[in-house]
Formats: sequence, structure tokens, C-alpha cells
Amino acid sequence: MLRTHTLSELNASLTGQTVTVTGWVARRRDHGGVAFVDLRDASGFAQVVVRDEADFDPLRNEWVLQVTGTVERRPEGNENPNLPSGEIELIADTVTVLNQAAPLPFQIDEHVEVGEEARLRHRYLDLRRPDPARIMRLRSEANRTARELLHAQGFTEVETPTLTRSTPEGARDFLVPARLAPGSWYALPQSPQLFKQLLQVGGVEKYYQIARCYRDEDFRADRQPEFTQLDIEASFVEQDDVIALGEQIVKDLWALVGVEVPTPIRRMTYHEAMTKYGSDKPDLRFGLELTELTEYFTDTPFRVFQAPYVGAVVMPGGASQARRALDAWQEWAKQRGAKGLAYVLVQEDGELTGPVAKNITEAEKAGLAEATGAKPGDCIFFAAGEPGLSRALLGAARVEIGRRCELFTDAGEGVAAKDADWAFVWIVDAPMFEPAADAEASGDVAVGSGAWTAVHHAFTSPKPEFMDTFDQNPGEALAYAYDIVCNGNEIGGGSIRIHDQDVQKRVFEVMGLPEQDAQEKFGFLLEGFKYGAPPHGGIAFGWDRVVALLAGTESIREVIAFPKTGGGYDPLTAAPAPITAQQRKEAGVDAAPEPKKGEASVSADAPQA
Amino acid sequence: MLRTHTLSELNASLTGQTVTVTGWVARRRDHGGVAFVDLRDASGFAQVVVRDEADFDPLRNEWVLQVTGTVERRPEGNENPNLPSGEIELIADTVTVLNQAAPLPFQIDEHVEVGEEARLRHRYLDLRRPDPARIMRLRSEANRTARELLHAQGFTEVETPTLTRSTPEGARDFLVPARLAPGSWYALPQSPQLFKQLLQVGGVEKYYQIARCYRDEDFRADRQPEFTQLDIEASFVEQDDVIALGEQIVKDLWALVGVEVPTPIRRMTYHEAMTKYGSDKPDLRFGLELTELTEYFTDTPFRVFQAPYVGAVVMPGGASQARRALDAWQEWAKQRGAKGLAYVLVQEDGELTGPVAKNITEAEKAGLAEATGAKPGDCIFFAAGEPGLSRALLGAARVEIGRRCELFTDAGEGVAAKDADWAFVWIVDAPMFEPAADAEASGDVAVGSGAWTAVHHAFTSPKPEFMDTFDQNPGEALAYAYDIVCNGNEIGGGSIRIHDQDVQKRVFEVMGLPEQDAQEKFGFLLEGFKYGAPPHGGIAFGWDRVVALLAGTESIREVIAFPKTGGGYDPLTAAPAPITAQQRKEAGVDAAPEPKKGEASVSADAPQA
Repeated sequence: MLRTHTLSELNASLTGQTVTVTGWVARRRDHGGVAFVDLRDASGFAQVVVRDEADFDPLRNEWVLQVTGTVERRPEGNENPNLPSGEIELIADTVTVLNQAAPLPFQIDEHVEVGEEARLRHRYLDLRRPDPARIMRLRSEANRTARELLHAQGFTEVETPTLTRSTPEGARDFLVPARLAPGSWYALPQSPQLFKQLLQVGGVEKYYQIARCYRDEDFRADRQPEFTQLDIEASFVEQDDVIALGEQIVKDLWALVGVEVPTPIRRMTYHEAMTKYGSDKPDLRFGLELTELTEYFTDTPFRVFQAPYVGAVVMPGGASQARRALDAWQEWAKQRGAKGLAYVLVQEDGELTGPVAKNITEAEKAGLAEATGAKPGDCIFFAAGEPGLSRALLGAARVEIGRRCELFTDAGEGVAAKDADWAFVWIVDAPMFEPAADAEASGDVAVGSGAWTAVHHAFTSPKPEFMDTFDQNPGEALAYAYDIVCNGNEIGGGSIRIHDQDVQKRVFEVMGLPEQDAQEKFGFLLEGFKYGAPPHGGIAFGWDRVVALLAGTESIREVIAFPKTGGGYDPLTAAPAPITAQQRKEAGVDAAPEPKKGEASVSADAPQA
Repeated sequence: MLRTHTLSELNASLTGQTVTVTGWVARRRDHGGVAFVDLRDASGFAQVVVRDEADFDPLRNEWVLQVTGTVERRPEGNENPNLPSGEIELIADTVTVLNQAAPLPFQIDEHVEVGEEARLRHRYLDLRRPDPARIMRLRSEANRTARELLHAQGFTEVETPTLTRSTPEGARDFLVPARLAPGSWYALPQSPQLFKQLLQVGGVEKYYQIARCYRDEDFRADRQPEFTQLDIEASFVEQDDVIALGEQIVKDLWALVGVEVPTPIRRMTYHEAMTKYGSDKPDLRFGLELTELTEYFTDTPFRVFQAPYVGAVVMPGGASQARRALDAWQEWAKQRGAKGLAYVLVQEDGELTGPVAKNITEAEKAGLAEATGAKPGDCIFFAAGEPGLSRALLGAARVEIGRRCELFTDAGEGVAAKDADWAFVWIVDAPMFEPAADAEASGDVAVGSGAWTAVHHAFTSPKPEFMDTFDQNPGEALAYAYDIVCNGNEIGGGSIRIHDQDVQKRVFEVMGLPEQDAQEKFGFLLEGFKYGAPPHGGIAFGWDRVVALLAGTESIREVIAFPKTGGGYDPLTAAPAPITAQQRKEAGVDAAPEPKKGEASVSADAPQA
């Protein structure tokens, strides 16, 4: 080693000893004939006193030094209690420059002024900053914590393939041309779902993996083309077993940042979440439940409220918002695809004002505050129309109100995790199917051509009480599925799977996936299920989001060492990039695939190259 | 849970208690009115006694059962000491069939008769067999062991990107079309090499990852298109530090299988390995060093031995080989690209026979046994010609002799790891460069257009004593690199890297990589190295091979849950496969890339789509 100690290992117990340390020049202060150098390594900082001008004169920020010197106590009053090495300084005997540094594109500091793309283009400099460095270590600790728990519970870590077959699971696959089988392609997996289920067929019983997953999505805010999940599957389990394991994982993870999560974590039905919070991932750090007013306005003369659903959410103190702020809400709603956001202001004297108030009856006005729980000084926001969209709008408004009214405290920006608000909830009893049109509207690829598609995925079991009827009443069947939500973020989800071939076939039928198509898409899974598949279930945590919450960062890009920006662009390597004609030729991209002996071409509309 | 106990938890202490277990029917024996069912779960086996004919009659192998019953001691003499549950049996009260199984393509047994492709097509059945199941658990334990050691030493686990930029590192990249940047492509990384070095620039100091890597190679025996390495990099380290860490990892891993690896592990120079063993990964479980006879035959009349190199290796007892066996050696040599394998038989009376003996002088014959160390009854094999190829042939013959003469004991096939032979060695002081033609001959892609290419890779530092001269005498410069070899397998390798930009430029020059090309290929790394790169180095273990050695299996396919066969074909999913015209269109495979603003097309010969 080029050093005897890390910088944070230096302390008063070493006083008088000769040590060698290494690190980067974080700051240098010259005091006429002596320079104080703040040296930084991964462990922290130490102050180095350089007395030889020939040594310190050339030094610049971020040069890499090896310093041999004597540890001495700092003069009385000069201690820095914030540093492990704050009681001492290192009096340099020899200073060796291990490497120089060109002038930096941005300073290595607690806060940087440059934009995210510049930070990511020089991410190796960004990672030298205290907060990104802390987050990388926290992520490593999160991995360790989860693995230790799972090993202690007898889980086996298994790596599943990432060059595999294209199997639509709700998003598009990334594709990889196979040079040795020109015209054929691998796909990168959207998750290890099929493999982890096959491992259960294989008798592994308790599987886990921190797995890289790939989804070729139109990049919505804060999605990455490659992301990580903590992936778990076990045999002979029931919903309560997986939930209990999930809670233990959450408990251990949040303990890392000093937060004690009380268990059991509350469970809420999907129906209750949608009704009261307008979301399947409700943020329960604050109240502000939605009020349904459909019946209340059943005879209203106001055309807008003559709708299959009318609901409201109250903004405390919102009556005092300026006209400009109320206009901004309209803009906010329009950006979400709504026409606007109707509102009533409850004045301090109880009078209702605003455009809506002019359109509803006196009787409707009279009972409105009581019906919605609004108090003098509040603002009541309304949505009316199709129940799903209206509730979603109110649910989003509720979260926005919570943020603007500071009804909760986020970790980050100077707030330690233990001082922030945390609210966990399991959402259970979600519907098994949704209309295929809804899934496509939200950007997913519907599997099958039926009117219904799976809300979770095609392998999710119905709850036992819907086992006989789910195909007659697909809209009413509930799935044996559970999602865990933290502060309004879905951080994990899973289900008890179908292990019975006949049930699986019936599910495919509801989804409009004829047997031949199902065979083509999932044949190897269905084949496996013939040979004694055990009852099984599992869960997957969205690891980037989990770590982002632990770290107190808004974006998952902050918890990924080398993330991509919008559109899947990597500012560091400038990937993706054009390839050479030779690479293209070798990859066999333009070859026509040869059908295998005795096997029809897998797809009827294979490419004509 | 659908059970109260795993099968191996059942023992005599539970006698008289009611338990519920689950598992697969491994075997059923009917004894008139009573059936004995060997039930299997991931933990092991237990014997279930079913007295109700209606219960046991329909049962078939691999059906999945839930059995509730009473634990009873087996009748005296019926115990099975090989099972944890061998003292007891479970008297079934209720037998619930959780799932049925169709007739199996092969039996779940210690040994299977079907070929590998059939096993892999139904890998989920193969994994129910005792040995594959044991190997999956062993791999999980190996992961855990390495991670625990590295965490204890302060290493941070960091995930690096797998959708990245194509950067030739010695093999071809797998490519991924980027739908959102039509005509541009990602590449799957051959290793995290560049990223782990950038993490050192980023001050992470101690990095590790069990990383998936991708190489699009012409499949040689036992290569996988995706494979796993334990990847490690650290700052401020020297060769001895990385070697010490590598030895601790090896020690901890082999302790898992009851083998104590003595440390420090022997080190051997590359030169010694090539000279004495004809290989840079010598199997040191046995002797049989090569003897160089170039000088010995300097005046020989035998034309074949009038060569730049003549060498020999002795086969103990080889003189008694039948003519057919000697002919087979010729075939063996021809398959390796040699003309044949010259030999001399040393008869019991000391007389030398065989074709070569007729062609050399009496004086040459007289001293040959002594020069080679051959004893009466031995066979001396010769190779003559270019030194590299000749030594490689003798080195391969040496290993083949070792195998045929049973000079070592492999683990596996009934031999426990602790009863097998193990020989570890570090190979150090390898040459820094090799002629580019040699690299291409062995199937690698030479980086750059120079006469020389890097033996390890372009970022490997020369040893300090060659720092000034490596570019004047590329053929003589030694690299600051180290490979660890176990029983003739390279299981890991690494180097101290170049951290000085000027040294890196000089290396690129030797490799014939002009600055502009270097910028194009590795620009983001070189840019990072401007800003205070610390001295650093690392190592990567070929994790599949390590686990295969621990498991006592010959092929790495046995230690991969879902491996591919030759040509990168996956018998389970039938990947790779044709894609649909729609997938092709969406992926943007046929779009011409748009040059970015202010940036020339990255490659001069970009595809014309």
C-alpha cells in the first residue's frame, strides 16, 4: 500500500508517530511560509501542514499526493470536532505528487452549480463530492443488509440469464443480434420473472437475486433503460409469508438510516386506496382524503357535475391563494390532461366563492363544507367525470396540496432520514384484470388481443375466492397480489403465482391469448409447469427507488453510479452511438433467419431482410 | 406457509407430534395396503407412510404433495443413517395433492442417461437432482463468502452499466439497437474494466462487484456469451496488496469445500512457466517439466531437430504403450495443428527405440535419458520448431500425460474436494506486449493497428523498471500483471493500471493507436484521467470457473442455472430467435444515425442504411 493509514484513522492516539497517507488536495491555504492542505480520501479529510514552499507552491486542487509526516495535536482552539482527524494535523516531511490534475470543469464541493448533464459527463468528479460518495456506500450497505437477511432465512442467490428470449411482459424488450445465428436475436429480460418461477419448478424453493432488468420504454421522468430489482421467489408460501419477509427487509433497510419502521405495516385494499386517495400508491404521510360527492350532486343544475363521478379534496388554508395561484392550478390540471380543476373557496365567514359556487344551488352550497370537511379559509377542489380519471386527478391534486402546504417532511436537503416522515402501506386485493385499452393508454404493451389484460402480470393467481369465477367476471376478480408503498412510491410488488396449468390457460383466454400464441410466447414456462410446479409466490423491490428513498434523493439517477439521462443517453460515454459497417455486417443484423429443422418460423411476421 | 417443517427438520425429537410437510414424490413403494413415499424438498428427503389406498394409489413421481401426519420412530433396523430424517417416518393423516406431474422426459435421479441438451431443455427438472441442486447452493455460498470478506475489508459494491458504449477490449461486443436514438446502438460490456477504473478516479478507492460480462466470441469449448466475474479494483495499492487479497479470497472459498489452501501462494514468472511447463497456466499438481534440448541437438544430423527450439517431455512408463497408442498421440498432435509428436522409447534395458532414435547420432542417444531425466520404461516426446508453438505442444502433451498416467486426482465423480489435489500459483512478470499477429491467431481482436498489442489490456502498467524503455523495446517490457492459476486453469487475473496520461499515450503508440483513434475509443476514460487519477490496480476472478472447480465439475455449464450450449443457443427458451417486423421497425435497426450537433459521426465507416 502507498499509505499506512486512511485519513480518518489519524487521531490523537497517533501523536508523535510517523505515518504515510494519500489523497486528493481538497483545499490549500497559504500562510506565508507554511501551507495548510485539506487532504481528502474515501474515508474523510485531514489537515496537512506543509512547511517547504517548494513542496506546496506547485500544488493545485485535486492533485493526488502521498504525504509522509508526523502526527501532532492541533494548537488549542484549532480543533475541528466535525472530523475524526479533527484533533490532529499531519506535519509533512515528504510530499510526493502521485498525479496532477487539469483545471476542473466544476469544483468538488458540497454543492455544485453546474447542471446534471455536466455532472454526469464527469461523473467521476461528481462521485468525489461528499453526498454522491455517501450514497454509493449506502447502496452497497443496502445490498449487504438485504442479502444477509435473505441468507439467514435460507434463500439461495441464483443468477438468471440476461441474453434470453423476447417475452412481452408489459413493456418493449431490448434486442441483441446473435452473430452466430444470423437473423436471430436475443432479448434482454424485463425481469427474471419467468426464470424465478422455473427455479421454483426446479425445487430451489427460496430464490433471490439483485438483478439487472431492462425495459425499452418511452422515457418517462426518472426511468432508466436498465434498472435493478431485489428479486425474490419462494415455494409453498402464502401471501402473509411474503408480506412478512418484505416487512423484515424494509425494517432492516430503514434501520440503516436510523429509522425504525413499526411492523406489521398497515394493509389497505386497492379499492380503498383508489376511493380515498385516488391512487394505488397513496402517500399516507398526511390525511386529506378524497370525498365522493356523486350522490351529493345527484340533482345539481351544474352541468359539469352531472357526471358519473364527482369528488373533492380540500386544501387547508387554500382560500387565501392569490388569483395567480388559482390560475396556476388550472395549468397544472391541463398538463395532466384534465380540462381544469374546479374549486370553491370557503371564506373565513363561511361564504363560498369562486366560479363553481355561482353554479350550484343554495342547498348544495349550504352542506358542502360539512360534506367535504372543509373549514373556513380552505379551498375545495373538484373533479367530475369518469371515476378513474377523476380520482386520479384528485389524487394528484392531493399530493400537490400536501407538498405546497408542507404537510410532510421529506428526507434530504439537510433533513436526516430519522427526522423525516415515513408512511408505509401494503396495497392488497387489486383487480386481476384491467381493460386492455387502459393498459395501452398508460404506455404498457398489452399481452394478448383480448378486451382484458393483467394488471400485475399474466402469471398472477386470482384470490382463492375468485378461482372459479374470474373468467366469467374478469372485471370483478381480485388478484392474489400485494404492492408495498412508501411515501407515495411503489417500492415493491409481488403476487402468489398460478401453479395450475388449467388456471393459467383460463387466464390466457381472458386476455385473448390463444393457446398457440401462449405456447409461442411462454411455451417453455408452460412446458415446465406440466411437471409438478409447486405453489409459489414472490416479490420484487425496485432497488433504485428504495435506495433513493433511503438516501433522501428525489431522482434515482443519484443512486446509480453511471446513470443515463432522458432518452437513454449516457453523457459519460456518449452511448448509444453509431456502429461501423463491419460491426453491422458481423452482427448479422441484416441476415434472414434460417428456420430450425422441424420448427416453423417462430413468428408469422418475421423480418424480410 | 403450506408446511410447518422442512423434511430435513423432521427427526426423533418430534416423535408423536403432528406436522405438515410439502414436497415432491421421489419414489413410491407399495406393500399391500400401505405405501412408502420418499418425499423430497430442497432440504432433503423423508419417508411418508400412507395407509389409505385411495390416497396413495393415484400418486405418481414428481407430484407435489402436502402431507399432514404424525412423526414416528422407524421400526428397529429400518433407520437410514444417510438422512437427517432417517430415524423417523411420517404417518400420513391427510395427503393433499398440490399439483400433478406429466410423465417426465427423464427421471430425477443421481445420474441421468439423457444428453446435455435434453437436460438443459428441461433444466428445471435437472435442478431437482441432488448434484445440480447442491451446486446452485454452493455458488450462492461462494458469492456470500467473497462478499463478506470484501465488506469486512471496507470494499464498496458498485453496479456499473451494462448498456454502454462499444469499446473493443479484445473480443467482439454484443450490440443493442437504441430505439429512442434510431440508428445508434449500445454495447454490452466485456467487463466493467473502464468503469471500475473511473470509479477509482472518482475516489471510491475500494470497489467490487459480482458482474455479468458479455463477449461475442466464436464459441470455443466451454465459453458462454454471458459470464460472471468477481471484479475488484482499489486505489493506492501495489501488486503485493492485490495478491494478498486474492489469496484471502481463494482461501475462504476453498474452505467452503473443506480444503485448506496454504498461503502465501507460490509465484512463478511467466518466463519460467512457459519454459518449464509450456503454458502460462501450468498445472502444478505434478512435475514432468519440459527439457530444452536446442543446444543438445545443435549439431544433429536429424533435419527435424535442426530448429530454433527443440524440447522434450517424459511420459513415465510410456515405453510400454502399444503401437496404436503411439499412433493416437500423432492424431492428438495433428488435432492441435502440429505435424506430429516425435518420440523415443527408452526400453527397460536402456536401449532407445522408435523412429527418432534411428535418425540421431549415437552420442545424442547416449546422453538423452540423462538430459531429459527419462528412466528405463519411459517415453520421451519431442517438439521442434518455433519456440512458442513447440513449447505449447509439449505443455499440452504434459497435461495429457498427467491425465493418462493419473498423476493427479480431480474433485468430482465421487471424489470430495478435500480428497482431491489442488495446486495454486501466481504467474507474474508476463510480457507487456505480444505481436499483434499472435493475438489475432488466438482469436482476439487486436486493438490498434500496430505490430504490437497488449497481452493483458491497454491499461496495464509496465513494471517500474520498464517505465522508461517499454516503448523502445516493447518485446522485452514486462507488465505489472498477475494471474492466478488453479490446477491448470486461469481463475483470475489483474494488474496495476496506468494512471499517468503520458504513459498511457506511449502505450497506445506502441499499439499503433493514433491519438484520434484512442480518443474515439476510450476518450471518456482518457478525459477522466486528466483530473487526478490515483495509482490503482485490481483483479477479476472468472466466477463460473471458480465455482466449477469448487463444485468438482468439468464444465462451467454445470454451475450456471440456465446456461447456453455451443453457438450461444439456449435449449430452454430456444433463444436466440427471429423477431417480428414490428419489433425490427420499432428498434430502429435500419435507421441512419443522426450525427449529434457539433459532433462528427463517431466512426468514419458508419453504416449506410
